[in-house]
Amino acid sequence: MGKCRNHPDRETSHLCSKHNVYMCEECLKCNDPDIYCKFRSACTIWFMGRRKARWEKEKRAEEVIKKYKVIFTPEDKEIEVPEGKTLLDAAREADVHINASCNGKGSCGKCKLIFESGNIKSEPTTLLSDREKEKNYILACQTKMLGETVVSIPEETIERKLKVAGMGEEATALLKGLVKNIHPMLKEIPLELEPPTLNDPVSDLDRLNRGLKKTGCDISNLSIGIKVIRELSAAMRNENWKVTASIIRRNGANEILSVTPGNGKVTSLGLAIDVGTTTIVVYLVDMLNGSIIAATSGHNRQAACGDDVINRIVCAEKDGVAKLSRMALATINNLISEALAAVNIDKNQIKNVVISGNTTMTHLLLKIEPKYIRREPYIPTVSEFPILKAGDIGIKANPIAAVFVMPDPASYVGGDIVSGLLFAEFYRKDPLTLFIDVGTNGEIVLGNQDWLMTASCSAGPAFEGGGIRWGMRAEEGAIDKISIDPETFEPTFSTVDDVTPRGICGSGMIDLISEMMLTGIIGQDGKFKIDSSHPRIKKNGEDLSYILAFAEQTPMEEDIVFTEIDINSLILSKGAIYAGFMVLLKQAELDFSMIDQILISGGFGQYLNIDKAITIGLLPDIDRNKFKYLGNSSIAGAYMALLSDDYRNEARKISNNMTYIDFSSNRQFMDEFTSALFLPHTDINAFPNVKIQ
Amino acid sequence: MGKCRNHPDRETSHLCSKHNVYMCEECLKCNDPDIYCKFRSACTIWFMGRRKARWEKEKRAEEVIKKYKVIFTPEDKEIEVPEGKTLLDAAREADVHINASCNGKGSCGKCKLIFESGNIKSEPTTLLSDREKEKNYILACQTKMLGETVVSIPEETIERKLKVAGMGEEATALLKGLVKNIHPMLKEIPLELEPPTLNDPVSDLDRLNRGLKKTGCDISNLSIGIKVIRELSAAMRNENWKVTASIIRRNGANEILSVTPGNGKVTSLGLAIDVGTTTIVVYLVDMLNGSIIAATSGHNRQAACGDDVINRIVCAEKDGVAKLSRMALATINNLISEALAAVNIDKNQIKNVVISGNTTMTHLLLKIEPKYIRREPYIPTVSEFPILKAGDIGIKANPIAAVFVMPDPASYVGGDIVSGLLFAEFYRKDPLTLFIDVGTNGEIVLGNQDWLMTASCSAGPAFEGGGIRWGMRAEEGAIDKISIDPETFEPTFSTVDDVTPRGICGSGMIDLISEMMLTGIIGQDGKFKIDSSHPRIKKNGEDLSYILAFAEQTPMEEDIVFTEIDINSLILSKGAIYAGFMVLLKQAELDFSMIDQILISGGFGQYLNIDKAITIGLLPDIDRNKFKYLGNSSIAGAYMALLSDDYRNEARKISNNMTYIDFSSNRQFMDEFTSALFLPHTDINAFPNVKIQ
Repeated sequence: MGKCRNHPDRETSHLCSKHNVYMCEECLKCNDPDIYCKFRSACTIWFMGRRKARWEKEKRAEEVIKKYKVIFTPEDKEIEVPEGKTLLDAAREADVHINASCNGKGSCGKCKLIFESGNIKSEPTTLLSDREKEKNYILACQTKMLGETVVSIPEETIERKLKVAGMGEEATALLKGLVKNIHPMLKEIPLELEPPTLNDPVSDLDRLNRGLKKTGCDISNLSIGIKVIRELSAAMRNENWKVTASIIRRNGANEILSVTPGNGKVTSLGLAIDVGTTTIVVYLVDMLNGSIIAATSGHNRQAACGDDVINRIVCAEKDGVAKLSRMALATINNLISEALAAVNIDKNQIKNVVISGNTTMTHLLLKIEPKYIRREPYIPTVSEFPILKAGDIGIKANPIAAVFVMPDPASYVGGDIVSGLLFAEFYRKDPLTLFIDVGTNGEIVLGNQDWLMTASCSAGPAFEGGGIRWGMRAEEGAIDKISIDPETFEPTFSTVDDVTPRGICGSGMIDLISEMMLTGIIGQDGKFKIDSSHPRIKKNGEDLSYILAFAEQTPMEEDIVFTEIDINSLILSKGAIYAGFMVLLKQAELDFSMIDQILISGGFGQYLNIDKAITIGLLPDIDRNKFKYLGNSSIAGAYMALLSDDYRNEARKISNNMTYIDFSSNRQFMDEFTSALFLPHTDINAFPNVKIQ
Repeated sequence: MGKCRNHPDRETSHLCSKHNVYMCEECLKCNDPDIYCKFRSACTIWFMGRRKARWEKEKRAEEVIKKYKVIFTPEDKEIEVPEGKTLLDAAREADVHINASCNGKGSCGKCKLIFESGNIKSEPTTLLSDREKEKNYILACQTKMLGETVVSIPEETIERKLKVAGMGEEATALLKGLVKNIHPMLKEIPLELEPPTLNDPVSDLDRLNRGLKKTGCDISNLSIGIKVIRELSAAMRNENWKVTASIIRRNGANEILSVTPGNGKVTSLGLAIDVGTTTIVVYLVDMLNGSIIAATSGHNRQAACGDDVINRIVCAEKDGVAKLSRMALATINNLISEALAAVNIDKNQIKNVVISGNTTMTHLLLKIEPKYIRREPYIPTVSEFPILKAGDIGIKANPIAAVFVMPDPASYVGGDIVSGLLFAEFYRKDPLTLFIDVGTNGEIVLGNQDWLMTASCSAGPAFEGGGIRWGMRAEEGAIDKISIDPETFEPTFSTVDDVTPRGICGSGMIDLISEMMLTGIIGQDGKFKIDSSHPRIKKNGEDLSYILAFAEQTPMEEDIVFTEIDINSLILSKGAIYAGFMVLLKQAELDFSMIDQILISGGFGQYLNIDKAITIGLLPDIDRNKFKYLGNSSIAGAYMALLSDDYRNEARKISNNMTYIDFSSNRQFMDEFTSALFLPHTDINAFPNVKIQ
């Protein structure tokens, strides 16, 4: 032991045998690092010094990729993210679902979080109110971490379980029995084969084919892959020539996709999947009798890349289509897992799948380049998809499960609309029908058994809450019905699930605009007619808004308001849809009076007050009895196609027979659209029953 | 510095600070390894002791898997193999090809090596002569290494370039023009498509299909895989809507396998592959005009697992079928590479492949379990193969190349025979024909356009040199023609390529037995009639043999002899084949006089002297003009099927129409076989033209 040469107060045992000096732990450094010293192999200074240097180097390396922990309460999800990432990135990584309509651009103001503790840096934003800022509200996409951070998810950011139209036993009862003759794509045939003998030495495959032929299976165009062949001899002998063959039936050619030992009772499940831009719905179906044994739904995780299909395509161009595919698959596969868990069944039982979605959704899900969908002349890669295998596209099911994807007639009219028609059935009946699906886009079909015309109006996501200050989907706490006292301008409203209000959904907005107009709060141009002296009117800069619920009434302690900008967004949306009706009718040389029925599809229609929708000029002013609400017709059509060959063929026919009218460069549409940017319309004669005060 | 406590003569700096003792490098060991010592972190003894312990542990671990280097001269290939492996294992690992007919059982004596230096341990064997032992000959399969070893490969073990019947320009000239209308399975169609517009916004796939339809392609049952779809939009736009589509034509349903940018001149190649048990032949064919632009052949590497199909199946059961598949693929792919290199063309140009081989060869190549082929009731997994993709089975070609595998009618009559019939054409003509293919097995077909009967006789590999002391294939140095002076018993012979003799091939053996019998060296029972007093007769224990070439005439400096055991093997083989003829004829209620022609197929027939084959009773004693030699009809048939849909369909028909007669438990066959175990036959009246001296 001796004293450190730099710190005489410290005793140390580290001795440099060459220079005969002691060094303390802090000073450990070889005096001759570059020269070979004969004591080196026994020198603690050299050993320890090297160790210390390496440790310090590792420490520096760690610092370069510094990571910070983020905790999201109240769920208490934790994640470590590298310095420089935003809280939105962290939320996506941690699988914390928060609204991000604009895909992190900082323009929608939906991704609100409350900063609880830590060290952050937020970009300035006008999308948070002073009151919100006081309460430490931040926008996740505009905030980076500088240290460990705790944030909480405010009431209005948490997405509640969506009310999905057509779920539950009511819909199950409605759908069951709709398909009389069940014909799955992948059929399982149990067989008991004759064992081979010297007098009957045909090959295993010929023996199998012979057995299949006896059951009435057409083996003339039956093919088989090399993988199945490789396992054939073992499979056939494993349970003494009893086997079950799974055969996929395709146009023209069938294929043996698996041969498994045993010929016990066959149970087979199917999946009907509606891949919406916003919501994904999964039905788990017993293929033997068509009963829906489980149903789940959830938000499409792609929503983190924006609300509408255009944003999704932009995101796919930037980050690659594989990312968007993964997001949709993650949602779908989670929903499948949930459904399977509910009934305690293995995924390998799932042998048939039908997917229904709009053109962008199906392309993204299948990892097909979507970029030409959004570029003139708007071309999808595929309209009619081949029958795929679940294993090839990543759907959680038996890898050989047959997947039918509803055909997409055009870039902006997709398989979800074909599904809707399949369910609505007017395509094979006489009455002239107008079919509307208002979701994140607005699709219209006009026709009957003789002809079908279709178009898509860029209605935008306003009716689903996109771009609207307090807009939200028809979830728990959404204001869905409103009336306003014409004297006091005091509103009366109801919310989904009767809880305190968190925002306004599409039907609520229609009610609200209708009521504001009828009570004279706003004019037919959508501008406020009363000023901010009224307690229900609020002024923020130039922007006036109507206070629907005061802060003390809401769980967020924030006023729920509806601004002039919101009203304008709604007028643009409803104008686009109404203009769509008009152009299709004119193309067909018809008018509204000739229409026998208007079918409204999609979650949006669920709480819709037809009268008020007419009042604002969203729907035409015709006999109220002609309107009919269909519910989620996309999932219903997918269910029908899942069970029946006939319906799958019908779907292909519908898709081929629709005439698509492109509005993007249609001058007539632009004229009609401009005329419809008024409440209810510039041509008031078209709305004789709407009485403006 | 101080003196080591155990070695006072050694100075050392390693000091234990706790116990204050020095230790030299050899003694480095902590005094308190299990107790924490406060000096430990600075103690060189603890540090170095641990390091030493670890090093010693690693050294022990290394010793457990000790490896030895083997060098094979004259090729100078080196390989390291773990202790306990044989030199045959090492040779396989090093890709040094040596004969191993019995697959390492130590029973064939073919895998001779000369020990040059090192340390080895050989099991005793009777298969090496004293002279060989003197020259340090060893059997590779019976020798293990105990240290680094150098061995050389003796002359007779090196495999020479095989003379393949039907190769070269003569065969090319023969085959070219045989197929009038060329119909490849995978067809490439160049297209120039109309670019999309707002008025013509059909999907990319629909546009492609429309273009294909215009060229006359049937698109009603045309399918496409998801991978091709994923690349479609880019491929179509890359060269401004000019593309080339590759379409595979299958029964009932066609499939688009690729779409590539550009519609330039299409060049397409095909491969005809004959996968023989012994030899593999590859023809590279221009699919546009049918000319053979390169041809290669080589030994099937599976030969390292035994000469005949039974040994190969046994090997597959032991080591897994994947190993045998890899061996055949390695041979095939090397031959393809050679062929491609010769004409400087990329493998992706190859879009069509036909494989012809016996049932075991096709099963092994495709990694299909062969074990039930060798077990009663002898069942193959597949007879008629689906059209496969080269990429799925590992053939070096464009991964999407279509692969047609010649159908296998039975476990022991395979696609090579179907190919042979396709080429021989008698299956669609009137003359009654006997078709023989004597390779490692012996297959017979009898019939004409009205009926076809087939059988396999277990002739064994004797005619290919298997089990014969100096037997070899018709390679360089093989004695192929022999006559013996009836007075002096001196032989006169010729060898393949006129070099010094290295062994005897099948035709040579037939000549030899015929001559020995006619000159009275042996009797009709195959036993020697003269004793070892004659200089050409050698006695080795009880075993007599005829010396065909003395040691000084051979490159190995060894006598080339033909033993009584060899003669017996040949008699068994020829007896099996002749019995096969008899049973088929009797089943058909025919006799030899009714036969219009006898077609001899396979490399074996090439040097065959028909008269002498009749003399020993291998072939029937009928008009010599009725015999015709076909050459390698398996590759010829593969070539025809490669170019033509019609021939592919004919092949399927031939396979289905053949009636297979199983000899394995056929009493009639056993009787005929016993009668044929005599030279030429027990019924000498059947051979009126054979005059025994």
